[in-house]
Amino acid sequence: KSSFNQKDHPHRRYNPLLDEWILVSPQRAKRPWQGQTEKTSEEQLPAHDPNCYLCSGNVRVNGEKNPDYKGVYVFDNDFGSLMKDDVEFSEESSDFFSLKPERGINRVICFSKNHSLTLPEMEVDDIKKVVDVWQQQYKELGGLDYISHVQIFENKGQVMGCSNPHPHGQIWAQSSVPSIVAKTQENLKKYFDKNGTSLLEDYVKKELEINERIILENEDFVALVPFWAVWPYETMIVSKRKIENLIEFSENEKLSLASIIKDLTTKYDNLFEISFPYSAGIHQSPTDGKPHPEWHFHMHFYPPLLRSAEVKKFMVGYEMLAEAQRDVTPEQSAEILKSLSNTHYKCG
Amino acid sequence: KSSFNQKDHPHRRYNPLLDEWILVSPQRAKRPWQGQTEKTSEEQLPAHDPNCYLCSGNVRVNGEKNPDYKGVYVFDNDFGSLMKDDVEFSEESSDFFSLKPERGINRVICFSKNHSLTLPEMEVDDIKKVVDVWQQQYKELGGLDYISHVQIFENKGQVMGCSNPHPHGQIWAQSSVPSIVAKTQENLKKYFDKNGTSLLEDYVKKELEINERIILENEDFVALVPFWAVWPYETMIVSKRKIENLIEFSENEKLSLASIIKDLTTKYDNLFEISFPYSAGIHQSPTDGKPHPEWHFHMHFYPPLLRSAEVKKFMVGYEMLAEAQRDVTPEQSAEILKSLSNTHYKCG
Ligand SMILES: O=P(O)(O)O[C@H]1O[C@H](CO)[C@@H](O)[C@H](O)[C@H]1O
Ligand SMILES: O=P(O)(O)O[C@H]1O[C@H](CO)[C@@H](O)[C@H](O)[C@H]1O
Repeated sequence: KSSFNQKDHPHRRYNPLLDEWILVSPQRAKRPWQGQTEKTSEEQLPAHDPNCYLCSGNVRVNGEKNPDYKGVYVFDNDFGSLMKDDVEFSEESSDFFSLKPERGINRVICFSKNHSLTLPEMEVDDIKKVVDVWQQQYKELGGLDYISHVQIFENKGQVMGCSNPHPHGQIWAQSSVPSIVAKTQENLKKYFDKNGTSLLEDYVKKELEINERIILENEDFVALVPFWAVWPYETMIVSKRKIENLIEFSENEKLSLASIIKDLTTKYDNLFEISFPYSAGIHQSPTDGKPHPEWHFHMHFYPPLLRSAEVKKFMVGYEMLAEAQRDVTPEQSAEILKSLSNTHYKCG
Repeated sequence: KSSFNQKDHPHRRYNPLLDEWILVSPQRAKRPWQGQTEKTSEEQLPAHDPNCYLCSGNVRVNGEKNPDYKGVYVFDNDFGSLMKDDVEFSEESSDFFSLKPERGINRVICFSKNHSLTLPEMEVDDIKKVVDVWQQQYKELGGLDYISHVQIFENKGQVMGCSNPHPHGQIWAQSSVPSIVAKTQENLKKYFDKNGTSLLEDYVKKELEINERIILENEDFVALVPFWAVWPYETMIVSKRKIENLIEFSENEKLSLASIIKDLTTKYDNLFEISFPYSAGIHQSPTDGKPHPEWHFHMHFYPPLLRSAEVKKFMVGYEMLAEAQRDVTPEQSAEILKSLSNTHYKCG
């Protein structure tokens, strides 16, 4: 009987944020891949594209014209998943057919006027302006009496369902706290009620001690591959101090966040020397008017690629039905990301 | 204030199997799509492909030669995610770094000798032979003392990470009950303990009464779009009687299952007149040696396509961070699937 080694033997790891286990199969990275490959087009985009509905001055599908904006530009999504209207509804409760109307607002945030940029290619000061707008939007939307949660996120790259390369993110603000956030909150709360401290603050302290999964660190933030990461190059940016949400950020903290986002996404681009696709988003306290001492600001990055620009990890059959599964260990991925330069390959 | 209408207004629905909510945005189906489209190659495949590692008589990557099999053929996956070895392990418990070795067996099931077929194109009697093997495998693997769960599934189509068009499925048998199954079990058990009946038996009875989301029905099974379905054309096959697992299936029930699988996958192919991609798999009682009166056999189908053979639904940013979201109502999808012929378009 050989003794267990996490670099060679299949094992499960526990995710304390979601209270669930994931399967790690380090030995599986060796299998050959004969399946679907992703297109990678690295054409140089123009700074302004007359056909882009996000570029300044252009007309959108619904006939509205974008202003001649210079910096960050926010507008209501023309094809939102939510509607502002308050509707009349008489609830009938039932074991199997529970349904309730959901109100909300969907917005699009253009990060820059320049169509050809992405976050890692922007200046830190300009990314800071995006963070400023995230803060304003969280405050404005979260301040509406019918909004209980503000989800800020970015889908980057065609493979992540992004239909326009213009640098942009989204906000979905809604009247309920969505499922995954509610689950995270439940586990943060359980830990806080038991220990009187923040789960993520304590976790980050331990990670800094161990220093095996830390990718980047500055005055205010840490970027790491979580011990329980699911995606091959999944990472999380966590604030060092227990900040519940964006409103509490100082100017300096916003600059620190902008800086760590730039460095992390630069490393991502450098990994396969392509514009690295991902979905990223912020988890922070809901705006439901309740106190949330359990919350601790963090930002998730879920990139789909596995071995190269062309081969992604498919979260399919087993993963959809049974459990998330990964083929390299988080420590192996952390080592690779850590070793990559903070200077973008295009500037090399 | 207009009154709520589930065909027009965004709403959330409750999934009692997973105890979570999903977001439905019926009004969003109208948005134009400018993003990634999927390749659809409908070339006629040969009945035997000398380069296919699943075809009978061919040599696999690891040098082993497949026998000259005629019907269904099962073998251990050459690049499994699990290993049979029992390893020495001394647990150290910790809030943030919980990890335990996982033992198991991965198998591949070739559904047919014929490289060019898929389930909907096979004869019911031949699909029945696949069900026979599922039953045998569940019994054999589940009978091993270190196997607590047997996940049977199929990834079909390149877009679902399937790397070989030869008709085949997989089995991942392991020493723990995986996260999603454990969660389903928890909710089935809660209902069973409270009501003394099966959640899915009671649900299916109600769905048969309402008859709005039922796609197919035979003596022993029902195929329907669940009220809480997430994927645009997600369906579930449920046994009418409360069967805990495959072992309890009679010959006739296995034939009924084969028949409803054929009809359902035929409708899927007829939807866009292509070989319809999906991940499908069986949820049934774990093989952990405990009694499981709460369990009720069912099979999930998770197809990714949304509007056409080329446009899939992306479960990305909001969906990964906040909550599953769909753009058409389950009732609209059910109506479309119901209206499609049970005769495969290739035989038309
Ligand atoms: O086992 P396969 O077919 O090589 O691989 C496919 O199915 C597995 C089980 O759902 C996934 O883990 C892989 O990501 C996917 O590519
Ligand atoms: O809003 P977009 O960019 O058109 O759409 C994209 O992001 C949304 C939010 O994650 C998803 O619901 C869509 O499936 C995806 O294609």
